[in-house]
Amino acid sequence: MAEEHVVQEKALRRFCEQVLAKLGVPAEDARVTTDVLVLADLRGIDSHGVARLGRYVSGLKQGTMKATDQSRVIREAKATALVDGGQSLGQVVGKKGMDLAIRKARDTAVGVVAVRNSNHYGIAGYYSLMALEHDLIGVSMTNAGPLVVPTFGRTSILGTNPISLAAPAMKEKAFVLDMATSTVPRGKVEVYNRLGQPMPHGWAVDETGRSSTDPARVLNALAKRLGGGLLPLGGEGEDLGGHKGYGLALMVDVLCGVLSGAATGLQVYADEKKPDVGHFFMALDPTAFRPLDEFRRDMDRLARELKDSPRAQGQDRIYVHGEKSFARMEKFRKEGIPLDSKVVDGLKKIGTDLGIAWAA
Amino acid sequence: MAEEHVVQEKALRRFCEQVLAKLGVPAEDARVTTDVLVLADLRGIDSHGVARLGRYVSGLKQGTMKATDQSRVIREAKATALVDGGQSLGQVVGKKGMDLAIRKARDTAVGVVAVRNSNHYGIAGYYSLMALEHDLIGVSMTNAGPLVVPTFGRTSILGTNPISLAAPAMKEKAFVLDMATSTVPRGKVEVYNRLGQPMPHGWAVDETGRSSTDPARVLNALAKRLGGGLLPLGGEGEDLGGHKGYGLALMVDVLCGVLSGAATGLQVYADEKKPDVGHFFMALDPTAFRPLDEFRRDMDRLARELKDSPRAQGQDRIYVHGEKSFARMEKFRKEGIPLDSKVVDGLKKIGTDLGIAWAA
Repeated sequence: MAEEHVVQEKALRRFCEQVLAKLGVPAEDARVTTDVLVLADLRGIDSHGVARLGRYVSGLKQGTMKATDQSRVIREAKATALVDGGQSLGQVVGKKGMDLAIRKARDTAVGVVAVRNSNHYGIAGYYSLMALEHDLIGVSMTNAGPLVVPTFGRTSILGTNPISLAAPAMKEKAFVLDMATSTVPRGKVEVYNRLGQPMPHGWAVDETGRSSTDPARVLNALAKRLGGGLLPLGGEGEDLGGHKGYGLALMVDVLCGVLSGAATGLQVYADEKKPDVGHFFMALDPTAFRPLDEFRRDMDRLARELKDSPRAQGQDRIYVHGEKSFARMEKFRKEGIPLDSKVVDGLKKIGTDLGIAWAA
Repeated sequence: MAEEHVVQEKALRRFCEQVLAKLGVPAEDARVTTDVLVLADLRGIDSHGVARLGRYVSGLKQGTMKATDQSRVIREAKATALVDGGQSLGQVVGKKGMDLAIRKARDTAVGVVAVRNSNHYGIAGYYSLMALEHDLIGVSMTNAGPLVVPTFGRTSILGTNPISLAAPAMKEKAFVLDMATSTVPRGKVEVYNRLGQPMPHGWAVDETGRSSTDPARVLNALAKRLGGGLLPLGGEGEDLGGHKGYGLALMVDVLCGVLSGAATGLQVYADEKKPDVGHFFMALDPTAFRPLDEFRRDMDRLARELKDSPRAQGQDRIYVHGEKSFARMEKFRKEGIPLDSKVVDGLKKIGTDLGIAWAA
């Protein structure tokens, strides 16, 4: 494994904010964008953390991501809205979209906001988590560039299209589901490639469309656009439910792409100058259905029932979703965030190019 | 395989309606309940079709399912409602819940209805499909009796908790996702048991909590309450994403059980006299976001893009969800519905007991 550097959260935030500011992003938008990136690292989803800062730097430099917020509400009704992201930073647009869904949910108990013409918005969980501060249930989804092969296909058409739902609990940690609808992210195939190890079946297919254990072959086929890609949750074919993961990925594209009028399927990121990513946000007020304390108490009871149930042979713990991430956050906030040395090198280079001193 | 009988839809409907009427179910409610059961058979989900009529007969006889509709709206706001099912037939309550969500969506573009104190409502897809008649997107979920083991656990705590979403298309068939969040339904383990064949890994665990290929052992452990059960979509552990399927099943219980105040986890069906099943329904109006024709045209485009993409080696067709079921419906409506001879025997016996002549 690569060497790790530990960077303090505050210093890392300052660095990212300075980088974004240098590229013309207003202070508050730089803060939000950084917040989404750093939260990913804090929660242990390092594939979506500051390791991606370079992509945003490129996007801003090339103008495919607008430095100032160009988003606007195109259509609006009591409980719904359509936002055009104006090709602004996905995090800025995403936060605005979820804020609007939350505001609507406070009025009408439910708010649904669809977003088109946006960019990569980071972790889906950032936006669903926002709802918790208002004691609401939050839902966040996004489509993404093609990387997932439909069941019985051999070309990636859909993105890893994540689904996130967060719901408040009482003494227990909030339930935070934040999952790609593929079996694994592309990063996991890349890790196995670096290690020179075979992957498990069910992760990816090569250019023939058959499940492959050879990460180099899969990545090569993808890079050369020969075909292949990640398998949907459930793996190859229908025996282990691969058609279900494929269905979930497609559902996300319907809600994010088709509903908003954004790009869908192969069209997402097809035009490098206009990625046209689509998001879907929903906030739902539990108190429209029952008193908040009863809702939260029952969230606790269900979590405890799962966690206190007998463990499988060889296992010593059952988790509820979000729990591991909350534990990581606590640890990393105290001890600093571990970053791969290659990531640190990349960040340092960004800093050098822009004349900004590195965080540590 | 067991012998098959082909029964005409109309005769099958009449038989089921007569059975329900005989047990005190009013004509319209008998029609709705039958409609849900027969639609399952027509769509090829025979595990949830008329094969289950016996359970409803028992429930009605024992009074755990009320023959007349006792459901009522407990709380209501513009876009949301909470329904207490009053232990009525799940299909009757479910249809009422989805009808209400649809009515709300026509007013406020989105309607969310949570239901508690209901019974088994049949296929989740019945209710999401209802939205299509109104050019709406429909969502339907339900919790269910414990049968699915959480990741790293060895006792079933969650139900097979299905998720269904239907969205209208134009020339293509509507997208209809209707999936249990377990890898396979229990019925599939039973089929392998009858055939005396080993199952694939990733379907179920035995009493040790480890994936087992022995259907007899899994069913025996379940029957004797020694532990074991179905695996969530993604299989055992986290390598193939089993924690994601587990998260989806839990999400469904949060939206169906916790939100409505119904039973959750182990409590569903724990009290035989009061199953207290919970449902979640949502209807969403695409025209709040964009013109209906544009939405439907893009649904077609995405479906065609997937279906026309290159096939994996050895495969000759890529499907979009719902397509196979629509094809079966057409065929079975014309040629009759194939029923397992054991199912027919069961139905005949119900008829004999109640003095009702069999359909054929």
